[in-house]
Amino acid sequence: MNSYIQHLACSNCDATYPHTEPQNVCHLCGKPLFARYSLDQLKDNWKPDDLHTRPNSFWRYKELLPIQNDEDIVSLGETVTPLLNVNRLGAQLGLDNLWIKDESRLPTGSFKARGLAMAVSKAKALGIDKLAIPSAGNAATALSVYAAKAGIPAYIFMPKDTPAFNQKTCELAGANVTLIDGLITDAGKIVANRKINKGWFDVSTLKEPYRVEGKKTMGFELAEQCCWELPDVIIYPTGGGTGIVGMWKGFKELERIGWISKKRPRFISVQSSGCAPIVKAWEDGKSDAEPWQDADTIASGLRVPQAIGDFLILDAIRESNGAAISVSDGEIVDAMKLLPTTEGLLTCPEGAATVAALQPLLTDGLIGPSEKIVLFNTGGFQA
Amino acid sequence: MNSYIQHLACSNCDATYPHTEPQNVCHLCGKPLFARYSLDQLKDNWKPDDLHTRPNSFWRYKELLPIQNDEDIVSLGETVTPLLNVNRLGAQLGLDNLWIKDESRLPTGSFKARGLAMAVSKAKALGIDKLAIPSAGNAATALSVYAAKAGIPAYIFMPKDTPAFNQKTCELAGANVTLIDGLITDAGKIVANRKINKGWFDVSTLKEPYRVEGKKTMGFELAEQCCWELPDVIIYPTGGGTGIVGMWKGFKELERIGWISKKRPRFISVQSSGCAPIVKAWEDGKSDAEPWQDADTIASGLRVPQAIGDFLILDAIRESNGAAISVSDGEIVDAMKLLPTTEGLLTCPEGAATVAALQPLLTDGLIGPSEKIVLFNTGGFQA
Repeated sequence: MNSYIQHLACSNCDATYPHTEPQNVCHLCGKPLFARYSLDQLKDNWKPDDLHTRPNSFWRYKELLPIQNDEDIVSLGETVTPLLNVNRLGAQLGLDNLWIKDESRLPTGSFKARGLAMAVSKAKALGIDKLAIPSAGNAATALSVYAAKAGIPAYIFMPKDTPAFNQKTCELAGANVTLIDGLITDAGKIVANRKINKGWFDVSTLKEPYRVEGKKTMGFELAEQCCWELPDVIIYPTGGGTGIVGMWKGFKELERIGWISKKRPRFISVQSSGCAPIVKAWEDGKSDAEPWQDADTIASGLRVPQAIGDFLILDAIRESNGAAISVSDGEIVDAMKLLPTTEGLLTCPEGAATVAALQPLLTDGLIGPSEKIVLFNTGGFQA
Repeated sequence: MNSYIQHLACSNCDATYPHTEPQNVCHLCGKPLFARYSLDQLKDNWKPDDLHTRPNSFWRYKELLPIQNDEDIVSLGETVTPLLNVNRLGAQLGLDNLWIKDESRLPTGSFKARGLAMAVSKAKALGIDKLAIPSAGNAATALSVYAAKAGIPAYIFMPKDTPAFNQKTCELAGANVTLIDGLITDAGKIVANRKINKGWFDVSTLKEPYRVEGKKTMGFELAEQCCWELPDVIIYPTGGGTGIVGMWKGFKELERIGWISKKRPRFISVQSSGCAPIVKAWEDGKSDAEPWQDADTIASGLRVPQAIGDFLILDAIRESNGAAISVSDGEIVDAMKLLPTTEGLLTCPEGAATVAALQPLLTDGLIGPSEKIVLFNTGGFQA
């Protein structure tokens, strides 16, 4: 027995769907589908000690992942990412217990590898033969290489000003790339409009049920690295927000199988002031976010004007007593220098945004000096 | 008890030196110094099973590393790099058992992290307060961030046409960068000329005794990943060649403590036809290499016209019954596409060079179809 997956269930209504055939969103209400597992059975059969002999990869959590047969796993070596103490940076800011989980160390240099490794593996298991994705950049790169590894054609739609690294890597991996005059949301509309005629399976985040299962492994790894006692605060750069949604889901699963207590970190979402729909919705007390107009930021991964999982992100922030905050591109640029000079850590702009948020969060009393705080650097520095 | 280091010994003559004070090359003959360990004592006290509870990092081999106190370790999370099966690529070439060790997954995206993590940790232990390096690019980036983490000023000298990624990262990390009109060998002369007046410690590879100790951990990891039975062939892109020298040294140490047999992989060194001093020396049957004139290649890491460890590289190639081969920049570019399309793996030009070498090596009978062959991808793709 490997995966304890049972079925897919709508995150909004009560509809359920078999996981043994391709699924996108709920047929009834159009909201994301979540994988559900036999957690009561798993609780009796799986213990943290069982992990000791597992590979150093998120595939070590296979009981809570949706892939049933090892031969369907499409892997490029998804090593567990390091959780690094950054107390010298912390000391400069008046924080005693500051950490960064460095996701740049995954294949393709970003956290997007988690979701796309999972989505492509499940696509392989289901015999899906064409994959299409709208992307702000790093997801396109990750899909391109995992699809290449699986031998499945990939169709990429992304803004024409997506970073050169993403454009070149998609081409190198042999993906079919279309650069568009617009943003990820516009790219998403193109995929939605053409997919039926073209026979593409849409792997847009949260319109596809398994990318979030990959993302939740950030939470599993963090929990294990913290000896199954979660930190006080997680500060997370938020574009599509699947990371927050995934970790929130993963923590609930870990509690249900008895591996962690009820204690949850407060989720603090960081966006760029040039594209901050989640921050605005949180400040306005809304449960959904309005599309952001004229989104513009140097952090390409944060240039997501509308996220299908907006209500899930906002739920996780509120249920966790978290917050949402925006930082300017100038503050992001400053943080991209502060982190390497103090800690030797090179980051993407999105990761640097979490560093930029620390001072205002401390000033506002949203984080405390002796709390255990974990930042997520979602990708590597690109010149 | 942690490290079993005893002293430093010249790789050429019989001179020995204490490791408890800063050392560069042998005072008598000018050749590289090697760290020597109490291997007989270690043989009785350390077994492979002891590794099971160690961190997933090259620091797991601390008995055979030169750092004596954990508090001197300067770490950015040096996770063990994955050894990836690439049998689809192998099948295209007629190779049954082909693997790539993907060094791009280390901090700063290259294998240079190994040597510089070790050199900076030892520098910290010895109280060295200024570090200078000539570099073709990736070593500069690695020194910059590890020095920043340690709080030691770094002085970088590299060609003015070094890739933008390297230039920008050194600046971000706050290093003192000088771009020169020349190659790494010219940069090395500047460091050599100025270091006494400036009070710089020279961390040029093999003029500093500990970078090679970091590099040998590639061999330790590979041996452990292969269950202590080494592959038939290692194909390695060779600039300064410290990787080959380090692995060769590491394998001897592992044999001395009884962890591996006498069996060694054949080392095959790959260079660019635009800069192939080791290949020429090997073909000419020389024990040292002549400086290469007008070195020019897109693989910046292979643009090393003269390596101080040339005689050690050539020794390892010959003792292992290996070979040396050059590939053209055009073949490197083709391989940079072949690997992502067949295996989803993005590489640096240097890593791609090892892929480009496979077909000619097979044609020449220098590798066999069913041999276990391991390529080293020494760094990540940069746009």
